Amino acid sequence: MSNKITVLDKGYVRLIEPMGSDLSVVNAARVSFDKESGRIDDRDKRLIQFLAREGHTSPFRHAFASFEIYAPLMVARQWFKYIVGSDHAMDGWNESSRRYITEEPTFYVPGKEEWRSAPENSKQGSGKPVDPLIGNMLMNEMENHIRKGEALYNFAIEQGICAEQARLFLPAYSLYVRWRWTASLQSICHFLNERLASDAQNEITQYAKGVYELVEPHFPESVKALVKQHE
Amino acid sequence: MSNKITVLDKGYVRLIEPMGSDLSVVNAARVSFDKESGRIDDRDKRLIQFLAREGHTSPFRHAFASFEIYAPLMVARQWFKYIVGSDHAMDGWNESSRRYITEEPTFYVPGKEEWRSAPENSKQGSGKPVDPLIGNMLMNEMENHIRKGEALYNFAIEQGICAEQARLFLPAYSLYVRWRWTASLQSICHFLNERLASDAQNEITQYAKGVYELVEPHFPESVKALVKQHE
Amino acid sequence: MSNKITVLDKGYVRLIEPMGSDLSVVNAARVSFDKESGRIDDRDKRLIQFLAREGHTSPFRHAFASFEIYAPLMVARQWFKYIVGSDHAMDGWNESSRRYITEEPTFYVPGKEEWRSAPENSKQGSGKPVDPLIGNMLMNEMENHIRKGEALYNFAIEQGICAEQARLFLPAYSLYVRWRWTASLQSICHFLNERLASDAQNEITQYAKGVYELVEPHFPESVKALVKQHE
Amino acid sequence: MSNKITVLDKGYVRLIEPMGSDLSVVNAARVSFDKESGRIDDRDKRLIQFLAREGHTSPFRHAFASFEIYAPLMVARQWFKYIVGSDHAMDGWNESSRRYITEEPTFYVPGKEEWRSAPENSKQGSGKPVDPLIGNMLMNEMENHIRKGEALYNFAIEQGICAEQARLFLPAYSLYVRWRWTASLQSICHFLNERLASDAQNEITQYAKGVYELVEPHFPESVKALVKQHE
Repeated sequence: MSNKITVLDKGYVRLIEPMGSDLSVVNAARVSFDKESGRIDDRDKRLIQFLAREGHTSPFRHAFASFEIYAPLMVARQWFKYIVGSDHAMDGWNESSRRYITEEPTFYVPGKEEWRSAPENSKQGSGKPVDPLIGNMLMNEMENHIRKGEALYNFAIEQGICAEQARLFLPAYSLYVRWRWTASLQSICHFLNERLASDAQNEITQYAKGVYELVEPHFPESVKALVKQHE
Repeated sequence: MSNKITVLDKGYVRLIEPMGSDLSVVNAARVSFDKESGRIDDRDKRLIQFLAREGHTSPFRHAFASFEIYAPLMVARQWFKYIVGSDHAMDGWNESSRRYITEEPTFYVPGKEEWRSAPENSKQGSGKPVDPLIGNMLMNEMENHIRKGEALYNFAIEQGICAEQARLFLPAYSLYVRWRWTASLQSICHFLNERLASDAQNEITQYAKGVYELVEPHFPESVKALVKQHE
Repeated sequence: MSNKITVLDKGYVRLIEPMGSDLSVVNAARVSFDKESGRIDDRDKRLIQFLAREGHTSPFRHAFASFEIYAPLMVARQWFKYIVGSDHAMDGWNESSRRYITEEPTFYVPGKEEWRSAPENSKQGSGKPVDPLIGNMLMNEMENHIRKGEALYNFAIEQGICAEQARLFLPAYSLYVRWRWTASLQSICHFLNERLASDAQNEITQYAKGVYELVEPHFPESVKALVKQHE
Repeated sequence: MSNKITVLDKGYVRLIEPMGSDLSVVNAARVSFDKESGRIDDRDKRLIQFLAREGHTSPFRHAFASFEIYAPLMVARQWFKYIVGSDHAMDGWNESSRRYITEEPTFYVPGKEEWRSAPENSKQGSGKPVDPLIGNMLMNEMENHIRKGEALYNFAIEQGICAEQARLFLPAYSLYVRWRWTASLQSICHFLNERLASDAQNEITQYAKGVYELVEPHFPESVKALVKQHE
């Protein structure tokens, strides 16, 4: 199995390294009893389910994983807010910045069949896809608008303007950024529960699915116990 | 003194409420001695300086302040990163989202004398202001480009597209967002040290100055001890 | 209403200062809509209930309270573990230390009617009170044992031994310590839910009741929404 | 090299698992440049030194280690306070509890040459060892006092008293407890700087040395850059 999953038109999630396993959870929970499991058995599985059900989440903070993510800034911001807004503070985060001139800017453009309508009964989220003819028109408009913004950005740079101001011309929500995220199993599963939910923005849900696929094989019992089923 | 300070062309920082005072720091530090100061005296001031100098920062976590900030998303992101990237986790953060259609979008446009050149010896930051003729041209280009982005955003909304996708047309770095930030005195002073520094982006430094002005009168000894002098 | 509540034989909880109110929660949650309530109404109350029910806890991190607590070390340790073990990191904590010679040591001794039996169907917790004759005997034994430990502590100090080693003679679980705790409304209510529960140690539950009484009048709607009913 | 180091008379530190390496730090710091080192070279080493010197600590939060520790409660409490008191929140902690009856209680007793005098010019800490004759006397007194406390504990248990109250008879500061601690490289090095310092309690310094020996081989450049030299 690859440790890298492609998401959206140009993005990805990559698992850099996991630490620990379901046994890390079990052995942390049993520290009062000075017993250490070397292989997970049915009693261990029931313990994990018990911990998850009763909200005894601290043992899930002895397993970690580190990721690299490449996603539109719009997605990075939602991910971010979940971390700052929640109190799941066990997260390392380092992100690329457009205050530097480094890589060429790259942008997310929804394909003609990927534009979604406003939802009927909600102030946020989205409904069904719109007619691909409309989608096609918007896709073309967006590509033109991005091209114009890039041209203005490059013009400003040529005029000697600092990158940190020139970037104001870029359509930042769709700009790809790259970051590393290191988080406990508890924090990762909390993120999955929030971002796999049906009212999350479709784009971030696609990243959450990538995280799920990469994480689940390393911590199958914990993920089963902590992450609600979504369909 | 007003509790609200105007920043940039349309932004502000507002102090909603402080909690505690320099005495909160002193009394927390002296908890082993069961002595409580009712008025700050010279011995208390020396204690605050000692705590700051020796890095005994925990007593500074018993005083708090809550702010409302209105700033370009570019500034919000830098503020954010400082919080997630540092481990100063004692922060509440709630921010407006363009996944909702609520207020009219508002944008930051640097005035003709506010465009800055690239720095000479650094990969980030900025140098001196550029010629106002160039600044004027860029300001006009930016206003036009924003108007075009807004028109496309409104067109997409009229076509029934969800707000969370339509916003991809907006020049998000300059888009004003509003948030509430609640943080300990330790966290606030750490933010000030980082964002008042000369290599911070000018726009966020202006907000940091606003925070400084609002906070300093409530915790004068602690701010003097924790925040390095910047000129 | 007093801001100090007596707990156990010699302990107390004191509310030093609250910050904010139920309105802090409401106004943080509505930051996307740029609406600010000045008085709490029925719509605000329903919003608080909605936030609590759906687990949208971040707005509860814009209200705080600061306490002083005087409790046996056994209680301090459980309180502590809840903070480190959970990920509710928004807590300031400063505690007295017996590495210093300061106050006379003071100890918690359960009264003759306060000794509890082992529970019947559980590995932890406690059951009904035991016969006061047994309680009386244990109370006397404990007082004697504490006196002996204190005598040894004082003897070691007289022999020139450092306080940080001499304290090994003290029956530390029952030793009173004093600390200041500053926490968000979210963290306080999480503590209350855990420590008002029937399987928590009786001694800490008494402190939790004190915290509840002091906090509830300042944030009535939030406490009602976040803290489960306990009987 | 063993992953377990003996400390004090009956204690130990054991490295359960590290995650990442010095490269995790380097690659997180360079995420803006989309360059990934596969082997650490001199430029990488200079980057680590630069990050440590300038206080850019966030990249050190992408490497972790998990430990099991067996130490007197007095040491556990100091370790704990450092975590709650500092704002290094990226720590998992699960500890054994005497609310359960599990293992036989085990106690730390300083040997006859290990008793230290009060320091001359400080309110805390300790000075030179005292005369071994005095040390021998105190050691014997402590062993007797512990035996008496254990006898009372067992007597209370036999009378049907719950473990959570019976433990009040135990000399808890010297009672061994076991816990698992999972922390970022930043947090570990912060702990080392505080607890290797000469004014830290000798007993915890011995544990800090164990942590240092176990961690240094896995992150040699980062530990060199972050941990001050102590002699």
